[in-house]
Amino acid sequence: MRIGRVIGNVWATRKEEGLQGLKLLIVQPIHVDGKPVNSSIVAADRIGAGIGDNVLVTSGGSSRFIMRDNPIPIDAVIIGIIDSLEIERGE
Amino acid sequence: MRIGRVIGNVWATRKEEGLQGLKLLIVQPIHVDGKPVNSSIVAADRIGAGIGDNVLVTSGGSSRFIMRDNPIPIDAVIIGIIDSLEIERGE
Amino acid sequence: MRIGRVIGNVWATRKEEGLQGLKLLIVQPIHVDGKPVNSSIVAADRIGAGIGDNVLVTSGGSSRFIMRDNPIPIDAVIIGIIDSLEIERGE
Amino acid sequence: MRIGRVIGNVWATRKEEGLQGLKLLIVQPIHVDGKPVNSSIVAADRIGAGIGDNVLVTSGGSSRFIMRDNPIPIDAVIIGIIDSLEIERGE
Amino acid sequence: MRIGRVIGNVWATRKEEGLQGLKLLIVQPIHVDGKPVNSSIVAADRIGAGIGDNVLVTSGGSSRFIMRDNPIPIDAVIIGIIDSLEIERGE
Repeated sequence: MRIGRVIGNVWATRKEEGLQGLKLLIVQPIHVDGKPVNSSIVAADRIGAGIGDNVLVTSGGSSRFIMRDNPIPIDAVIIGIIDSLEIERGE
Repeated sequence: MRIGRVIGNVWATRKEEGLQGLKLLIVQPIHVDGKPVNSSIVAADRIGAGIGDNVLVTSGGSSRFIMRDNPIPIDAVIIGIIDSLEIERGE
Repeated sequence: MRIGRVIGNVWATRKEEGLQGLKLLIVQPIHVDGKPVNSSIVAADRIGAGIGDNVLVTSGGSSRFIMRDNPIPIDAVIIGIIDSLEIERGE
Repeated sequence: MRIGRVIGNVWATRKEEGLQGLKLLIVQPIHVDGKPVNSSIVAADRIGAGIGDNVLVTSGGSSRFIMRDNPIPIDAVIIGIIDSLEIERGE
Repeated sequence: MRIGRVIGNVWATRKEEGLQGLKLLIVQPIHVDGKPVNSSIVAADRIGAGIGDNVLVTSGGSSRFIMRDNPIPIDAVIIGIIDSLEIERGE
C-alpha cells in the first residue's frame, strides 16, 4: 500500500455501472516524512476519510475487493486512516 | 484512478475476441492543474466520453469488470466524466 | 492500452505450461507521434500482427483473458492492429 | 517479487472490512547490494517479519491470495524473510 | 513479458503458505541488446532456468496462474528460456 494525504474531491455524474454513490477523493502520495511523491491519484473511499487525513491506499486489481460479491472497475481505494507510524532505520 | 483528457480516437479492424464494437479513445493523463503527465494511453469507453472531456480512467485488471460476466482483455477504461474537482491543500 | 510497433520475434523452447504454440512478438511502445517510449516488451499475439505493424497492447492481469477458460501466465498481449488514429488537442 | 528491508510500523484504527488484526509494516525496497531504491511501501505481514529483516514483497493483485477464501483489498504482502542471496554475474 | 538475465539465487526459510519448494531466482531485466534496465527482481522458476540464462518474465497478477488450481501470492515468474530473438526495425 502507499501512504497518501487526502487533498480534494472529484464529482462525476456520468459513470460506469456500479459506481453510483461511491465517494471519490483526490490523494497525494507522500513519503514517510510527509513530502509529496509522484502525481495525485483518485481513490474510492468507504471509511469516511476527509481532507488532510493521512491514509493507506491500495492500488490495482485488489481494489475491487472492497465489494467482494460485486466487483467494480476501480483501481485505487482508501483502506485505512493512519493513526501513527514509526520508522526505525537501525538494525 | 487517474485523471485524463480525451484527445483522440483509435480504429482497429483486426481485434481480439470480445472487443468488437468497443469504442477506444486516446487519453492524455493530466495533473489536477490540467498539465499533461506521462504518455497518452488508449482506454475503452462505454459512457459516451468525447474529445476534450476530463475523465477518470481505471487501469489494470479491474478494467475488465465493466463487463462482469464477460471479461475482456483490456487494461484501461473510462469510468467517469468529471463534472468538477476541488483541491484543498490545507489541513 | 498502450500503442506500440512490432519490431521482432522471440523463440523459447522451454516454456511454462499452456504457452506452447503461442506466438511471442517484441513490441516497442511508441507515442502517438510514433516516437519510441520506454523499453520494448514481449507480447503474445493471436491475431496475426507482423513486423512494422502499429498495435494496441494490453498489459497486466487482463492479458490472460484472451483464453478465458484457460488462464495462462502472460502479462502482455496484442489486442488490435491499428488502422488509424486521430488526435484533436483542441477543446 | 522485490527485495526490501523492514523499517517501521503503521497503525490504523479505521480500516476497510477484512483488515482487522492484519499487521502492517513499512518496507524500503532495496537493490541486491542493500542500497535503497524508490519510495517505501506498506506491506501486510503474517509470517512475523521484524524491523531490520530483509524480506521478499509481492505486489499487486496476487497479494490478496494470502487469504485465498477471503480476498482482501491489499496490494503488497511480505511472502518471505530472506536468509541469504547469492549473485553470480558471470555467464 | 520482460526480457531478463538470471543472475542469482535467494533463499528464505520462513515463507507464506504455498511457497514451500518454489525456486526463487534473481533476474536482471535487460534491453533487447543485452544492457541492464531498472532494478533486478525475484522471480519464481519451475522450468529449470539457471545462472546466465536469458528468460521471459511475467509480472503481476497473472504470475499466480502457473498453479491454476492453487493460486499463490507471487508477482513474477519465469515463463520461458529464450533460445533466440530477432529484431527488424525497418518498415
